[in-house]
Amino acid sequence: MPGSKAEGAFILHNDLPWALETRRNHFGFGPITSASHLFVRNNLPAPAASLTDQGDGWSFDVVGCAREGSLTLADLKRMKNRTVATVLQCSGNGRDFFPHDPSGSQWGVGAAGCVLWTGVSVADIFEQFGGVQSGLAYLTATGGEELPEGVDKDAVVVERSVPIEKGLRDCLLVWEMNGAPLPVIHGGPVRLVVPGYFGVNNVKWVRQLAATARESGAKIQQSGYRMRPEGLAGGPEQPSMWRMPVKSWLNGPGADGAAVLAGTNTLYGVAFSGERGVDAVEVSADDGATWQQAEWVGPDLGPDAWRTFQFAIRIPVGEHRFVTRATDTQGDQQPRVAVHNHRGYGHNGWRDHGLSVRAVAELPKTEIKGSLQASESTADTVSASMAMLALSDKALEGKQLFLQQAQPGCGVCHSLADANARGVVGPNLNQLRPNLAQVESAIAQGVGAMPAYGAQLSQSELEALAAYVVEATR
Amino acid sequence: MPGSKAEGAFILHNDLPWALETRRNHFGFGPITSASHLFVRNNLPAPAASLTDQGDGWSFDVVGCAREGSLTLADLKRMKNRTVATVLQCSGNGRDFFPHDPSGSQWGVGAAGCVLWTGVSVADIFEQFGGVQSGLAYLTATGGEELPEGVDKDAVVVERSVPIEKGLRDCLLVWEMNGAPLPVIHGGPVRLVVPGYFGVNNVKWVRQLAATARESGAKIQQSGYRMRPEGLAGGPEQPSMWRMPVKSWLNGPGADGAAVLAGTNTLYGVAFSGERGVDAVEVSADDGATWQQAEWVGPDLGPDAWRTFQFAIRIPVGEHRFVTRATDTQGDQQPRVAVHNHRGYGHNGWRDHGLSVRAVAELPKTEIKGSLQASESTADTVSASMAMLALSDKALEGKQLFLQQAQPGCGVCHSLADANARGVVGPNLNQLRPNLAQVESAIAQGVGAMPAYGAQLSQSELEALAAYVVEATR
Repeated sequence: MPGSKAEGAFILHNDLPWALETRRNHFGFGPITSASHLFVRNNLPAPAASLTDQGDGWSFDVVGCAREGSLTLADLKRMKNRTVATVLQCSGNGRDFFPHDPSGSQWGVGAAGCVLWTGVSVADIFEQFGGVQSGLAYLTATGGEELPEGVDKDAVVVERSVPIEKGLRDCLLVWEMNGAPLPVIHGGPVRLVVPGYFGVNNVKWVRQLAATARESGAKIQQSGYRMRPEGLAGGPEQPSMWRMPVKSWLNGPGADGAAVLAGTNTLYGVAFSGERGVDAVEVSADDGATWQQAEWVGPDLGPDAWRTFQFAIRIPVGEHRFVTRATDTQGDQQPRVAVHNHRGYGHNGWRDHGLSVRAVAELPKTEIKGSLQASESTADTVSASMAMLALSDKALEGKQLFLQQAQPGCGVCHSLADANARGVVGPNLNQLRPNLAQVESAIAQGVGAMPAYGAQLSQSELEALAAYVVEATR
Repeated sequence: MPGSKAEGAFILHNDLPWALETRRNHFGFGPITSASHLFVRNNLPAPAASLTDQGDGWSFDVVGCAREGSLTLADLKRMKNRTVATVLQCSGNGRDFFPHDPSGSQWGVGAAGCVLWTGVSVADIFEQFGGVQSGLAYLTATGGEELPEGVDKDAVVVERSVPIEKGLRDCLLVWEMNGAPLPVIHGGPVRLVVPGYFGVNNVKWVRQLAATARESGAKIQQSGYRMRPEGLAGGPEQPSMWRMPVKSWLNGPGADGAAVLAGTNTLYGVAFSGERGVDAVEVSADDGATWQQAEWVGPDLGPDAWRTFQFAIRIPVGEHRFVTRATDTQGDQQPRVAVHNHRGYGHNGWRDHGLSVRAVAELPKTEIKGSLQASESTADTVSASMAMLALSDKALEGKQLFLQQAQPGCGVCHSLADANARGVVGPNLNQLRPNLAQVESAIAQGVGAMPAYGAQLSQSELEALAAYVVEATR
């Protein structure tokens, strides 16, 4: 499991390249999916670390404009930037629900997330090179994955095309995800974001951004990622996996087999429709015979994001199944059953996305884990320098005060190696290394949670204590 | 450094308890601060792991309502939830800019972040217990930190009060931050969020939520966190660090000494005002003699969040200083100089928050790091079972095809321990463990990036290959 990913939050479908599905009960209630919980689906392994480690030096070519050239990430960061929230969803999300067992990772609901991206618009980039040449109909992005020798490039290269109007309207090259640098596993240093389109179009590790006359000749574009009848081979005449249709599902409570306490509960989930946003989402407890409208929760992050919703409901003891149905701003409503297709793409049927919930009268008692104390491990981080310190007479007087005379003793709250003090309430003085004035002020007047001791100490004692703390932490 | 925090992104002010400041050049361009980049300021060390590990079993008392009682996190999750974005900012953020050297961590701009919280409203919680008793004027929350023996509780306990009207209007108990479970270091399992108020009010590890007649008697409330003239002791008659005033600053480019390339650049930063939101932010390149309005970027997450802004500007070679001044929705404008106060709290003066930028004609060449190949380390994860496999005759025939006859060889793309194949383009077959039908379908028709080989192989060869892959991965 990649180090940045939360333990226990994923179903591992594959490791080279990564295919990690967010477990349904590990989605949050809020509208953003944290990097630690976001699914991963890479078509090929990431470029070598020696390439992705270049950060701002990462470069890519720009093709199909009045002038050709290249840019680095540093160049992008000097340009006008944009931040948008989009749903990132694998074309095969929901494949596991198709009855004909299409090959590929058996994703349930968790090959999707909603992310805040920051980057530069493709239109601004093309503008820098004099604008798109006339007659070019597609935006084509090429990933930076290294291709093995002996393999036909078009068979494996990750290169995707979308209509040029789409590219110029709202596509971005991004370097930031949820406020942090875009992780390599998600396409960093630089990735294409195609708001509202399926994941495969959001090419990672972009090495070329082109305006082209035709769709890419790569297999992943020509015959891959096409909606095609079962048994038929893929081809360019079939619909490409571009815009994501309206969809919703519940993430809890009670997903992945966890029992819920019978009584009033709050169902929660997500709803979206590529480029459009959603108008409403309804919940049914009787397999769609009757529906009731759910309530939106949290901020609306825009038409390409998902919205989170909730629905308060009394759940009696027993097994239940709840389904949801979203309607987008153009009136499209989630169908009961998905469009059957060979590869198991684009599943948005409400029936199969239902949440099965087992409600019980009493939950099993929470097991209290072993009594490992956090302080046990952290106490050892006190750097106990055992070398004898040469203290001045004043400081030696202060040491006595520190150890014995202060009530309560200074070491109750502070760590100080020379005094063998390991308190963890106040600052570690070896780390803080305060100066005389700071110690005197803290003791005399208090600071933060520390009370004032000014009334209990003479000026001479105050100075002695300060001298000790300063000398003992040099 | 806590494990979940991004390497290099912080200034360490203290470790027991943690005081970590986000470096100015590690803030993102977007409106949300990732958990990996969010500052940490804890008054006391976190409760023992044995307590915080309880997750949904975490419980807290509810006091001051018609009925008293307690709730667990599991109870909260059954209630109606809310998601809000708020700026979390330490009262001492900007302390380093005060000329009188107030004691405490010398925060610059980085003791702040903007976060999406999910939880339950305090009003709903109190409602569950029959509502607040009449005459109680404060919401008082108590943290779950363990207090050392021998120390006066009121001197160290983290217990804060805010007006009850504020508590009932928009305060939350939260368990989720940016879509992931609230980390312990940030107050998980359960924390109070007081939108628009300084950090100290957002009590962590909440063990008691009370409506009270008076403000808490704790030192942190009575005399701590008060705006007071230099030299004066703290007391309850002074203003408490509650609502955050209007503020803005630039985060880049060129923060923390990084040179920028002269020419057109985009300045970017954040602006906010507690409970109000911001109307405008202006930029000045001449220390406030003239101002120009900046442009908002990204979604507006609400009146308690910050907004990100940008300003395109040509920067000539040389040293420059840019300042910004925000105006909130009630007309309050950031002052030039902060209100001088003993503890160095609440700094929002625009002059000191300026960004110094050094622009150069040419940037130093990016150093290409050593040629460590990602594939070197990942290749070792192939589980190379060296035990002899008992293969059927059919599978042995398939092994020859796998190793020699296929063009290109299967191992160019796939890992398969029995064949000593270590390709990383396609799935690792030992991990995938496909069944006969899946292998046959993939070879005959292709799948994902894999081309179809159906035309090159006889049915018997296809079956042999499939038999080999299945038997070799059992």
